[in-house]
Formats: sequence, C-alpha cells, structure tokens
Amino acid sequence: MTEKPLLNLNADLGESYGAWRMGDDDALLRLVQSANLACGFHAGDPVTMGRTVRLALAAGASLGAHPSYPDLQGFGRRAMRCSIEEVEALVLYQIGALDGFARAAGTRVSHIKPHGALSNESCRDPALAAAIARAARAYDRDLILLAPAHSRLAEAGLAAGLTVAIEIFADRAYDDDGALAPRGEPGAVLHGSAACRAHVAAVLAAGGLVTRSGKILPTPIHSICVHGDGPDAVAIAADLHRFLKENYSLAPLPALFF
Amino acid sequence: MTEKPLLNLNADLGESYGAWRMGDDDALLRLVQSANLACGFHAGDPVTMGRTVRLALAAGASLGAHPSYPDLQGFGRRAMRCSIEEVEALVLYQIGALDGFARAAGTRVSHIKPHGALSNESCRDPALAAAIARAARAYDRDLILLAPAHSRLAEAGLAAGLTVAIEIFADRAYDDDGALAPRGEPGAVLHGSAACRAHVAAVLAAGGLVTRSGKILPTPIHSICVHGDGPDAVAIAADLHRFLKENYSLAPLPALFF
Amino acid sequence: MTEKPLLNLNADLGESYGAWRMGDDDALLRLVQSANLACGFHAGDPVTMGRTVRLALAAGASLGAHPSYPDLQGFGRRAMRCSIEEVEALVLYQIGALDGFARAAGTRVSHIKPHGALSNESCRDPALAAAIARAARAYDRDLILLAPAHSRLAEAGLAAGLTVAIEIFADRAYDDDGALAPRGEPGAVLHGSAACRAHVAAVLAAGGLVTRSGKILPTPIHSICVHGDGPDAVAIAADLHRFLKENYSLAPLPALFF
Amino acid sequence: MTEKPLLNLNADLGESYGAWRMGDDDALLRLVQSANLACGFHAGDPVTMGRTVRLALAAGASLGAHPSYPDLQGFGRRAMRCSIEEVEALVLYQIGALDGFARAAGTRVSHIKPHGALSNESCRDPALAAAIARAARAYDRDLILLAPAHSRLAEAGLAAGLTVAIEIFADRAYDDDGALAPRGEPGAVLHGSAACRAHVAAVLAAGGLVTRSGKILPTPIHSICVHGDGPDAVAIAADLHRFLKENYSLAPLPALFF
Repeated sequence: MTEKPLLNLNADLGESYGAWRMGDDDALLRLVQSANLACGFHAGDPVTMGRTVRLALAAGASLGAHPSYPDLQGFGRRAMRCSIEEVEALVLYQIGALDGFARAAGTRVSHIKPHGALSNESCRDPALAAAIARAARAYDRDLILLAPAHSRLAEAGLAAGLTVAIEIFADRAYDDDGALAPRGEPGAVLHGSAACRAHVAAVLAAGGLVTRSGKILPTPIHSICVHGDGPDAVAIAADLHRFLKENYSLAPLPALFF
Repeated sequence: MTEKPLLNLNADLGESYGAWRMGDDDALLRLVQSANLACGFHAGDPVTMGRTVRLALAAGASLGAHPSYPDLQGFGRRAMRCSIEEVEALVLYQIGALDGFARAAGTRVSHIKPHGALSNESCRDPALAAAIARAARAYDRDLILLAPAHSRLAEAGLAAGLTVAIEIFADRAYDDDGALAPRGEPGAVLHGSAACRAHVAAVLAAGGLVTRSGKILPTPIHSICVHGDGPDAVAIAADLHRFLKENYSLAPLPALFF
Repeated sequence: MTEKPLLNLNADLGESYGAWRMGDDDALLRLVQSANLACGFHAGDPVTMGRTVRLALAAGASLGAHPSYPDLQGFGRRAMRCSIEEVEALVLYQIGALDGFARAAGTRVSHIKPHGALSNESCRDPALAAAIARAARAYDRDLILLAPAHSRLAEAGLAAGLTVAIEIFADRAYDDDGALAPRGEPGAVLHGSAACRAHVAAVLAAGGLVTRSGKILPTPIHSICVHGDGPDAVAIAADLHRFLKENYSLAPLPALFF
Repeated sequence: MTEKPLLNLNADLGESYGAWRMGDDDALLRLVQSANLACGFHAGDPVTMGRTVRLALAAGASLGAHPSYPDLQGFGRRAMRCSIEEVEALVLYQIGALDGFARAAGTRVSHIKPHGALSNESCRDPALAAAIARAARAYDRDLILLAPAHSRLAEAGLAAGLTVAIEIFADRAYDDDGALAPRGEPGAVLHGSAACRAHVAAVLAAGGLVTRSGKILPTPIHSICVHGDGPDAVAIAADLHRFLKENYSLAPLPALFF
C-alpha cells in the first residue's frame, strides 16, 4: 500500500470586523487545513481574532498570520508606499498580535501569508519581499512563509532561510512570467467547479504552472488557495476538496515540512 | 557588608505616534529599570514600538506591555464601556504585538501594566481587573502584573496566580481607601523634586501608603512610577533616582522576583 | 375631504464600511421618508456616504446626520467618557462631513439623530444632550433634532431653540419614566409585525407613550423609528408602512415642520 | 500714491492630534493670511479642528481645507492607490467636516489645498487632480483651489472652472519641468532666511519659476507657502513676511480674487 502524497488547502479567515460579518468561516474550516487569519489591519478586531483562532483550532487547521497594510477602509487592497522599516514593523506587529491569541489557546502561529496589496506588491518587489521574510524570521525562524509560485516573495523566503510553502490559486489563470493574469482580462478568473478542478488538476499533473499560452513553469506545489466569498466559492472549495482527497492526503502546512 | 534591598523605577515609554513625538525616552531610560511600552492602541505605531524596544534593551530596562482601550484620539484616557470579552481580547492582542518586537530583538516582554482609563477602571472594577489578569496569564503565566498598591487590579493578579509587582506614584497623594486623590483636588498632585522625594521616602519608611489624613495602609512596594512629560518630570525622576540608589539596588522588575 | 395628518418613518442607513455590508438600504428606502446616515465614526466610509446620500435622495427621503462616538470596532455602541468639548466637536465634525455629500448632491442635511451609545447617554445626561444640541444649532439653526419622546435630548433641543421631532420605537416597550425598557428584560423588545403594529397603534391612539404598566405619558409624535437588520425587520417595517399610510400621510421630516 | 499689489502667505496648521502637539500655530498666524487646516485624516482631531478654526479666525486668516489620504500613522505622506471615486469622496468628506467648524464660527472655508502624498500625486496625475477639483467644485463652486505653479492640479482646477491660486515654495528649488527638485538632491531644499528670501525675490521679479538651471517658467503667483516645523522655519517665515510687506499688501486669498 502506497501512502498518498501530502497536499494542503488554505483560505483567508477571520475577516469580520466588529459588527460586520464577512465570509463563511465555518464552511471553509470543514474544507481547508490551514487558515490565514486577519490581524486587525485590514479586518479582524481582537474579539474576532480570538474567536477565529479557537474555531480554527477546534477544526484542526493550522494557524497563519495574514498581515496587511493598515487600511480598514480599503480592506488592505490599496497599495501604500510604506518604507521598508515600516513594512518590517507592521508585519512583525501583526504576527505577534495573532500569536498572542494562539499562545493563549495553547498553540502557535505556524505560517505567515501577506494579504491583499501587501501580497501583490511583495510578489513583484524584492525589497518588500525581503522585509516580510526578515520580519517572519526575526519573530520565529520556524515560521513557514506561504507564497505564490514563481513570486519574489517565495524567493525572498528561501533566501532568508525560511521554510517556504508554495501555493497556487484554484480560480486564477497564469501568464508566462508566472504572474496571475490581470483580473480585468477575459479568462483571468475561472468560474465554476469544473473549470477550477480542471485547472488545479492540470497544474498538479504538470508539476508546474500551466499558463494561458500552454507553457509549463515547473514549481513545487504545497497548497491550493480557495476563497470563501462570492456566490459559489464554498461550492468550488468543496468540489476541490472531494477531488483532491482521492489522490492526496490533505494536511495542515506544518505536516508537509516538519 | 549588607546587600541593599532591591527596588525598581518604572515609566511609560514609546508614546510617540508616526510623525508626533511625546516624552523624553532617552532621558528616562537613564533613570528607570523597567519600561511600559505603548502597544498601538493609545500611542506607539509599529515603527516606534520596534525602535523603543531596542532602545530599552540597550539601556538594560525590562520590557512591559502598556495596553489601552482603542483610542488614539483620546490617548487612551477616556473610559470605554467594553465587554469583558473585549477587554480580555484587546489586552491579549497588545501583549502579543509588543512581544513580537521583543522576540525579534531576542528577548521577551516580562511585565504588563494597563494604561490610562483601562488602568483607572481596572483598579476599581474587579471584573475588569480579572479580565486583564486572565489575558496576561493566558499569554504567559510568568508575566509580572505591575499594579498600584491596594487596587482591585493587584488583587485580581494575585487571585489569578500571577506575580504581582506593587507600584506607588512619586507625585500623587493617596486617600484613606488607598485610591489616588482625584487630580482636581488641592494637594492631589505633588510638585517639585523635594515634595516627591519626601513622599516616596515616607511611604518606603512606613512600609505602606501614607494617606493625606496621615493614615498608613501597609503594602509591599516593588516599584516607583515616574513620569517623563511635564516641565520638570525628568528632573524629579533624576532626583528620585539619586536618592533611592543610596539605600536601594535599583533593578529591572524580573530581578525582584525570579 | 379631510387631509390625513402627517407622520414620518425613519431608519438608520449607510452603515456599511469599505468591503463590509450592513442593512438593506434599498428595501428600507421604499418604506421610510427620512434616513439617518452614518458619518464615518461608527460606520459609513466616505464612498458609502456619498452613495447612500444619492440613493436616499433618489428615493425622496430627507437626510439626517447620525453621529457617533469614534468607535468603528464597537460600532458606536460602547459608551466613551468624552468631555463636553469633545462631544460638541465630534458632532459638528460629522454633521459637516455628511453635509458635504448632501451639498455636492444639491441638497442639505435637514436633521440630526445621535447613534448608539451617544444617543443612549444623551437621552439621560442633560450636559451631553446640551452639547449635541449646541453643535447642531451652531451648524445650522434650522436643523431638526430627531429625539426620543421624554428624553433629555428632546428637552435640550427645545431649550436650544431647535425644531425637535419626537420619535417612538416600533419594537420597544417603555417604562414609566419614559425610558426604553432594558433589552435584557422580558417583553422589552417586541417581536413580529402584529405586536409592533399594535404597539404603534396604541401609542398613536393614546397620544403618548403607553408604558408596560399601562400608564400613558403624553407626547407629540412625529416619527416612528424602524430597523433594517434582524431577520424580519424589513417585513415589520413594510407592515407598519402599509398600516400607517391608511390614516397618515407619510412625509419627510421637514414637511412636518416647515 | 500707488497701491501695492496683493500677495498671500499660507501655511499648514492644526496638525496636532489628541495629546500630540505639532507646529507653532500661534507664531505662524502672526505671519500668514491663509491657513490650510488638517481635517482629521492625517492630523487634526475634531477638538483641534474647532480650536484652530477659531484661532485662525481671530488672527484674520482665511480658512482652507487640507485633505489627505486616510493615514494618521504615516501623517498622510504615504501614497495610497485609491480609486478616483474614493479620492473624490474623501476630499468631499474632509472639506465638509472642516466647513462644519467654520460655519459654527460664523464663516466658511474659502480654499482647499491637498496635503502630503495626495498633493504630490495630484500634481503629477491628471485624473487624480480632476477628482480633487470635482469634489471642491461640487461642494462649492466659489472654493479657491490653492495649487503649485505648473502642476496638473492647477490645470485641473482651471479646467473645472474653479478659481485657482498659484503658490510657490519659499524653501524649494525647481526643476526645468516646473516640478520641485527631489528632496534627496543637493540644493533641492534651501536653508536659512537669506537663501529663501533671495529665491522668492527672484521668482517674483521674474514673474515665473526660476529653475536650478536658470530657466524661467512664467506663472502667475498668488501665494507663498511657508512652513512651521523645523528649527528655524518660523524665523524664515518672519523674515519673508518683513521682506514682502515692503512691496506687497499681504492679504487673505479671497481678497486676491473676489
């Protein structure tokens, strides 16, 4: 009997704020093994953070910090020209804040994945990527950096000596340079369970990103990122979950590395 | 040769925010052995926090979290009717955030002292005090709670099994119930080095708070709180420092307990 | 043919914030003639404010500022011990901010109604109530103050020479002192369309608050406050709207006074 | 006897926030005739705004809104990629908020001048500049837009039909395209009263920007911007004030146009 290879599903959670609700955390926690939790800068007030940490723990998911630029109004989606020192400090702040709740619950944050504009920019900008990697490593050199395939962020994590988990997106097409096809372009965002499943299957079979032009960009793949908002996001995630567990053992990120 | 007894001086530091400066951290760090650092809710943006942690470390001061209600506009001085769950979560969040910078600098936060209105209210309100003690203990059961003598906060810390360091204020008169005399009343705030020195000397000699009516309320005394704002605050602190080190060995808080 | 007497329905609107949605503004704007709009301190980012102003205008509703303590995290529901000067300034700030959008749309804010904890406290505390009335009057002496019956807020508005519109709540029982029965107590909150309709009918028929003990506290009644959140809130509002328009001409607040 | 031509001095004021102080507003108000007031997004809490409006009024200065990206932590100096709709809304919000205090004091905001990164970006980006002009015009078509010479912002104001007041900076060198020489470069920032006075004199004599290479870029000049922070900023402003009033009648902005 052969053991199935390990794979991970991750999603962004805890993105409510005060009286405002967002996402279906309960549904996602039945499907993903690792949770990226908002840390108060784009979403996630302290009460929400504490609750979501306990919820994720109860579901067996590993905990990741999901730090953002300080921008509640823009949900962290607006690029901000922060200095390298500012980025390093705001990432460190948010990892620590989330880890406070993890420690209080008897566990630890085990990975970090930047959110929104901070993620987009650090996938392109080596200096920003290095600042994030530096903050993660300074906090805890065993933190896993969860980063998109072929990104500057992944490179910076490896250069800093961090464990880097490579993720692909279930519903996004790739360009030949490894970047996500811009949302505005036709075909950039995949719709429906069948299309997402086929995309993920192709990438896993190829052992690399399969770009819109048919090119293959080889990469290790540790995790698939799924979403919880949008009308059929949970249905897509559930379909992927069913499909993947036939051939993979779905596990929290640390189980893939340690 | 007899060893001098141990005593501690503490002050609030890192209360700048972005482009705004507050307090003379450099001057105070030559006088105090423990620093209470703002954690972003009433003051202390992430860059300031990181810098102040490194500054305090370099000066040999032990690090304390100084959590507050979320109120930059009011500098944490306005009471907010938060739920017990909210208070517990916001304290945990701020301890973790500050400890992120401490860990990145190779050390740890070793005490916690609530700021402003959160402090005032938790000195009177047992439920609030218990929430703060619970958050501290959940984060790290070795955290020292730095609390005013004869306060509900000190009691809650002891009840929670925390190490409690008792502080007195160099420049404030006490009422017969152990509370600070209200700022508005004549004589409530002491002015000038001589008055503050005499007050501290009397309290230390009595082994208890010496109230305005002359009553003595026995209490252990581990630390004297000094301030860095106001025209001659640093001069008062410097005078106290000179005076106390004749008879005491001034040391960081953990040295008094561990 | 006799003209029907004038009456008003009001609701809180524009309480989304950035990426977070709250309330069903479209549904409510088919039912109410006056809208209380969040001004950025408890909800309502600038884009939401601009959109909601234009939506309300298109629906023919009159615009009211709905100022709050500065507390996004707590949705303005947490009491904050602000000074009188602070309250006056934060109310003035929020009226002006909302009126900016009104003016840009070719109209004006015509009433003000405090939100959440600021409302609760100003209904009890004459000094706070006077500060709010003063801010409103200083901005524009023709602003209508929309205030609960038998509240200190209504009294302060009259004392300041403002036009005061008295509102009752469709789903809340009253105590003998005219205050709302505390939410925790049985019967304090009415459930279902029939109960709310009966309550409003009784109050209108009596020309006064009908308290839980059966006492009648005479009051003018200009407006009924309905809610948009909760599972059947819109259904209750729609039922009231149908019921009231049989005997009343439902009109924007200014139509009742000017 | 010939009348002296009119000219204006302007400065940024009201940039304190809560417990934090910034700038010497009293000193500047003895020198400038128009004040750009922070509106809460980069500085200027509501109490500070109200006080500064009354202070400026008492000094006879005309009032301008000084809107910013929402960034207290970065003092509005960090560029944020906001949408055009967001920029238009945040400018409108801040103009209205400040005008609330002006109206309460019996007067009106008469000009607008963007702050920090919002200013820098709108001087280069026509779409951003147009959004700001649109917001100003929508609020009040008599608002004066105070904009740097040869900027996209000035062009957008004219295209929108606004009255545009052109300003030059007393302490900054210009490049041949009319932009400020980047702060990092040698000679970009002028130091000392004599250098600033000579620079302003040369520009006024030339009737245009005198660039570092000696080129003259003709422009109307209505106002000189002076600063209140930095060690000798007030001294420089005072020197300029003395120098200019020999040949000019220094007046609030509206006096130059209406």
